[in-house]
Amino acid sequence: MAKKNEEFVQQITSRDVDFPQWYTDVVLKTNLVDYSLVRGCMVIKPYGYAIWELIQSELDRRFKETGHQNAYFPLLIPESLLQKEAEHVEGFAPEVLWVTEGGTEKLTERLAIRPTSETIICSMYSKWVQSYRDLPLLYNQWANVVRWEKTTRPFLRTAEFLWQEGHTIHATREEAEEETIKMLNVYREFCENVLAMPVTAGRKTENEKFAGAVDTYSIEALMHDGKALQAGTSHFLGQHFSKVYDIKFLDKDSQQKYAWQTSWGVTTRLIGGLIMVHGDDRGLKLPPMVAPKQVMIIPIAMFKPGVLDKANELFDEIKKAGIRVDIDDDDSQSPGYKFNECEMKGIPVRLEVGPRDIENGTVVLVRRDTFEKITVPMENIADTIKKLLDDIQKNMLVEATKARDEHTYPATTHEELMDALANKKGYVKAMWCGCTECEKELKAQTGATIRNMPFEQEHLSDVCALCGKPAKHMVYIARAY
Amino acid sequence: MAKKNEEFVQQITSRDVDFPQWYTDVVLKTNLVDYSLVRGCMVIKPYGYAIWELIQSELDRRFKETGHQNAYFPLLIPESLLQKEAEHVEGFAPEVLWVTEGGTEKLTERLAIRPTSETIICSMYSKWVQSYRDLPLLYNQWANVVRWEKTTRPFLRTAEFLWQEGHTIHATREEAEEETIKMLNVYREFCENVLAMPVTAGRKTENEKFAGAVDTYSIEALMHDGKALQAGTSHFLGQHFSKVYDIKFLDKDSQQKYAWQTSWGVTTRLIGGLIMVHGDDRGLKLPPMVAPKQVMIIPIAMFKPGVLDKANELFDEIKKAGIRVDIDDDDSQSPGYKFNECEMKGIPVRLEVGPRDIENGTVVLVRRDTFEKITVPMENIADTIKKLLDDIQKNMLVEATKARDEHTYPATTHEELMDALANKKGYVKAMWCGCTECEKELKAQTGATIRNMPFEQEHLSDVCALCGKPAKHMVYIARAY
Repeated sequence: MAKKNEEFVQQITSRDVDFPQWYTDVVLKTNLVDYSLVRGCMVIKPYGYAIWELIQSELDRRFKETGHQNAYFPLLIPESLLQKEAEHVEGFAPEVLWVTEGGTEKLTERLAIRPTSETIICSMYSKWVQSYRDLPLLYNQWANVVRWEKTTRPFLRTAEFLWQEGHTIHATREEAEEETIKMLNVYREFCENVLAMPVTAGRKTENEKFAGAVDTYSIEALMHDGKALQAGTSHFLGQHFSKVYDIKFLDKDSQQKYAWQTSWGVTTRLIGGLIMVHGDDRGLKLPPMVAPKQVMIIPIAMFKPGVLDKANELFDEIKKAGIRVDIDDDDSQSPGYKFNECEMKGIPVRLEVGPRDIENGTVVLVRRDTFEKITVPMENIADTIKKLLDDIQKNMLVEATKARDEHTYPATTHEELMDALANKKGYVKAMWCGCTECEKELKAQTGATIRNMPFEQEHLSDVCALCGKPAKHMVYIARAY
Repeated sequence: MAKKNEEFVQQITSRDVDFPQWYTDVVLKTNLVDYSLVRGCMVIKPYGYAIWELIQSELDRRFKETGHQNAYFPLLIPESLLQKEAEHVEGFAPEVLWVTEGGTEKLTERLAIRPTSETIICSMYSKWVQSYRDLPLLYNQWANVVRWEKTTRPFLRTAEFLWQEGHTIHATREEAEEETIKMLNVYREFCENVLAMPVTAGRKTENEKFAGAVDTYSIEALMHDGKALQAGTSHFLGQHFSKVYDIKFLDKDSQQKYAWQTSWGVTTRLIGGLIMVHGDDRGLKLPPMVAPKQVMIIPIAMFKPGVLDKANELFDEIKKAGIRVDIDDDDSQSPGYKFNECEMKGIPVRLEVGPRDIENGTVVLVRRDTFEKITVPMENIADTIKKLLDDIQKNMLVEATKARDEHTYPATTHEELMDALANKKGYVKAMWCGCTECEKELKAQTGATIRNMPFEQEHLSDVCALCGKPAKHMVYIARAY
């Protein structure tokens, strides 16, 4: 038995031995995804999709609470439409898939599969907006997009992925800028409180911004291997698109004006972040709010009279309280095997109940985050579990924040910066002069990039850690996914 | 004022004058959809998408309650994979869009945009299934698909549409057949109880079945203009695909066997059905269960002190009870205009509250389905409305069933059949010998098709109404969307 359980854990490579392999082992062995026959396209299996559904439902509620509505725009974009905004098309052209044939006929114009939907949505907004009374339009869509990338990894970078894209237009610059920051903050709050994943919110550099944006803002998270993950972006598009796609309105002052625009999105990539922030050598570790199963009941000595009945009774009681609970009553597997599987799948709480527990009127609860084992009364079990899940959710954010802070290294000189990037795993905080040359050289030399200029600025020194010229911003630097 | 209200209604063509135009007017004027720049692709606007979200949530719950899980499979299908099942590819090839270029490079193999996902899903099932213990797999996906059709109409037939597709595999034929019928019944129950749309469930003829299926079952609904709409299908696929895509399992008896398969789907087309079954010359008429707004509060003499406060108070109370309520406090429009708009948008209940109502402690409720106007106490208003919504939901099904039954004409002879098809609007019930020649001739002569062989068979006569040979089935015949 012990041997079998050991084998189970050995299926997963240790995180610190080979992190990329650990990641691949986890996503495949826990049945989150599988590779498909199409280059760079993954299949999201039910366990992975259930996490996405929970993410969707939490985000969708937040979008609606902030006044947004969902809509659906076409998958296909005529080439002439995509070509209109020069910067935008230049940014996306290398990754666009082109449809050229329908049935047995050649199409008269190539159709792009949407890599993002600014262009097609702008073409509609231009029809829908006449007066300031029509503004703002606060629309979002849940959709698939395709970017035909060469190197892909499940969730992190796939040719097709699922996402939401918000597209809003406003009468004034101020309102659009406010929306951009508001939605970034929705993402930040969501990542912290739902995914238990601390993020650093800030503005991207000119060099790293979205093709066609005036300003791009991002939230960045730090993974266990010390690399950063861009977890979400919010763009202030200014009037770039509205001028090109002719989104004009008659303002209160009887003047024709171009609308001000934003777009913002998060993707299935968030699931990759979740895995790499929380997972450990036992496998996944899911925050209760996005765990498809929050509690797994494992009956001990199932064959003894009364055990299964009691387990089912507990199941009913816990389920009734709105907790996502399951029961593992497979009699072909030992409890030890089930414990391991439960840990591998990242289920926040395991509940063990056997003959002795029943005698004592207790059950054993084991936390996935700390492996702490507690014996609690059966009475009010749903309440006890609710409190425990709440505590796990909070503790996971605390632990992840601690890990992030412990792996954030300030560097005030060029030497310190290079040393940190060469020898430490994590973020480097440094001052930057704001010029693109320094940024490009940093990338060329180290492979690291400026992740963003965080809203919460610190003054580390007066000069740029790269070139020694006067500093403008504190930035986070890291290698990134 | 009266003139303005009249104009409002005149925006919509009368149903009985020009039904197709009435349909177009309704979908555009009520902001359900708009045309896009891409041939045959519609934009689903927020009001239309909100209906789809309600449909999704009701269906998804039913799928999960019957043991199904959601997953997500790739949008793109390699040509070689699609080609494997001959009948299937023949059925879909004329409507497939082909991706041939990625960025600036030609792809080594063409990729089809999924017209349906049997082939890509089978390629995964073949990897995932080894033993009878792995069965059944009961998966569903919510996705977009593309069929490059020539003639399109919003919701009813669009090049891209949204749908769900269930794909299940089983160890035995019996189990797969049971699943096929079970899911058809889920659709039937859903259409009746949620969409208030009566449907006729039955088996399709050989000629009309899905490309690659052994048996196709459908639910058919009768529209106001007497044409039928196929509202959902459920296919028993036998072992056709599992043999071609090699989905084998080791059974309990240690024999290698091919799995038995089903697939089933409904689409955004259901919204088209909803419109054409219930709508009238005033516009949409939505059943409360899928109405994005169930109640619209319209304050009367809004400028008088206390009116708006009371309206907002009622709003809070009704909202708290879980009813989807809105308030129209736009002071640039008259109540009369708002009444009309509310009717056009199909909102089930309109609530009027003015100074006299406040004095009397009452409000006025107006039903969209019957235009009945009742004065009720303000006290317990949420309960009163809940009961009313429930009654409207039920009444709409009763009325739609009555309309369907009144437009169903039995025909026992060839003459009666031809007469009914020429002069009546609706279903013709007739006996059929079961041969494809009769069916094809019927279509060639009249444009009508056999919709299905309903489960609820009646014996109308001994002989086929088309050829006079011995009859095998009673069928529903109609022209169809």
